[in-house]
Amino acid sequence: MGRVTERRRVIRIRDGAVSTRPDTLVAEEPLEIRLNGKPLAITMRTPGDDFALAAGFLVSEGVLGRAEELANIVYCAGATEDGSNTYNVVDVKLAPGVPVPDITLERNVYTTSSCGLCGKASLDAVRTTARWPLGDDREDSEDSGGSEGSAVRIEPETLSALPDRLRAAQRVFDRTGGLHAAGLFTPDGELLDLREDVGRHNAVDKLVGRALQQGLLPLSGSVLMVSGRASFELAQKAVMAGIPVLAAVSAPSSLAVDLAAETGLTLVGFLRGTSMNVYAGEHRLALRTAVGGA
Amino acid sequence: MGRVTERRRVIRIRDGAVSTRPDTLVAEEPLEIRLNGKPLAITMRTPGDDFALAAGFLVSEGVLGRAEELANIVYCAGATEDGSNTYNVVDVKLAPGVPVPDITLERNVYTTSSCGLCGKASLDAVRTTARWPLGDDREDSEDSGGSEGSAVRIEPETLSALPDRLRAAQRVFDRTGGLHAAGLFTPDGELLDLREDVGRHNAVDKLVGRALQQGLLPLSGSVLMVSGRASFELAQKAVMAGIPVLAAVSAPSSLAVDLAAETGLTLVGFLRGTSMNVYAGEHRLALRTAVGGA
Repeated sequence: MGRVTERRRVIRIRDGAVSTRPDTLVAEEPLEIRLNGKPLAITMRTPGDDFALAAGFLVSEGVLGRAEELANIVYCAGATEDGSNTYNVVDVKLAPGVPVPDITLERNVYTTSSCGLCGKASLDAVRTTARWPLGDDREDSEDSGGSEGSAVRIEPETLSALPDRLRAAQRVFDRTGGLHAAGLFTPDGELLDLREDVGRHNAVDKLVGRALQQGLLPLSGSVLMVSGRASFELAQKAVMAGIPVLAAVSAPSSLAVDLAAETGLTLVGFLRGTSMNVYAGEHRLALRTAVGGA
Repeated sequence: MGRVTERRRVIRIRDGAVSTRPDTLVAEEPLEIRLNGKPLAITMRTPGDDFALAAGFLVSEGVLGRAEELANIVYCAGATEDGSNTYNVVDVKLAPGVPVPDITLERNVYTTSSCGLCGKASLDAVRTTARWPLGDDREDSEDSGGSEGSAVRIEPETLSALPDRLRAAQRVFDRTGGLHAAGLFTPDGELLDLREDVGRHNAVDKLVGRALQQGLLPLSGSVLMVSGRASFELAQKAVMAGIPVLAAVSAPSSLAVDLAAETGLTLVGFLRGTSMNVYAGEHRLALRTAVGGA
């Protein structure tokens, strides 16, 4: 393992000057995720934390929610020509009694029986699959002993400090410039965990999967910070993990905002310097000025 | 249609000052791509250019290579509750005689029969599926009348001008800050086409799909410029469309570099100001200084 980075020869051009040198690149390899032996998904990812990635992917899909539901995860021993293990196929075994969902790569969680696919259906699918309602005024439907009773409240100044803390903790990015990062913080801005990957979705899955393995779901008292934009799928991953606050350096999409509004997720975008845009769930932000308008 | 952007209410925080105003966001909706009536893929995309997106996706997967192989593309008329068309499901019909591949969302182009999945297999799959060899010293295997006989040669100064030209042409980004862009340029730096999407893969698929519809594949005499990083899948899309040069503002991954080296693709990363890194295919760059080392 340990193939997080790889070396390749590069020709550097700087103001017309040409030189050749070795360069450090972020590693990218395919990972196939199997569920009880059946192929479920293939993702291009940075090797490492593969079991966490698989577990987190299954949390996002609504298959896993608690560590006890997971029997084990193994690398599928190889059938390559030389008989070696490529460490690119993992098999997730669910605990006895845990229902094996009829999900395929068609991701039928998003589809309806015919041509009714639309953003609304995507929102409904997440809302009906989510195990832990994010709204602080709602009762939690799980007995998992999380801290969902205590409402998260966060200072804007705390949020403003997160991008620099995220970047400071990114070890591989410094060497390659090629990774997305996802960081999990306390409402006080303390970094709990950080994962990096060539794919931004994978970074979040790795973070959530580690939390599942450690029995920490739902992540009710935490803030998820991502290095790029806030897409629908990233908002979905936050909701499915019970994370009440998602902050992004860049823009959210319309569907991410709609999902946040429907599920009670606090969604912050364009988090730069002392500025930010709050698209939903502003009740978790300690704002000194009353919010006008509607 | 015309849902490229949507308006949502946003709370802006600037140095402690709080205000509420409407904001323009990039639209994101699911798109299901069907092939001869059979569901093939679902992608979250920015609505618009959906037929091009579907066609380009099928070029990347090796299903389509010429306009004549495409019979037609239609929106699958709706079965929503109110009977309306969501314009989120497209069905691609291949021309009679065009083989319908056995591809599924498992993307078995990447998989082998057992646990042999690895980067090498991904590279092999692209190399054996690609219709138009990129190497200028190789004979073209297609009779499509492209300009593959004339080797592309490009000045570093021309490449350095592309990021600004790409950004200047991005209309939706200016309003939302939320889109990836893919631009197709001539070797002289003239912009041929530009597509924007919430997903970077979609932007490239839209570009390639439009070219297919216009009978322009292979895009032998062109340069593809992308706004973000160069992943394996973006390099794959360039190769499958016969594009000889891929330039990115940010870092490539190891597997993207390996694919470029194997297929003869020129891969340029960190294209910023007058600097760039050339990871493969440097023979297409007009370098005044001899390249030393190895």
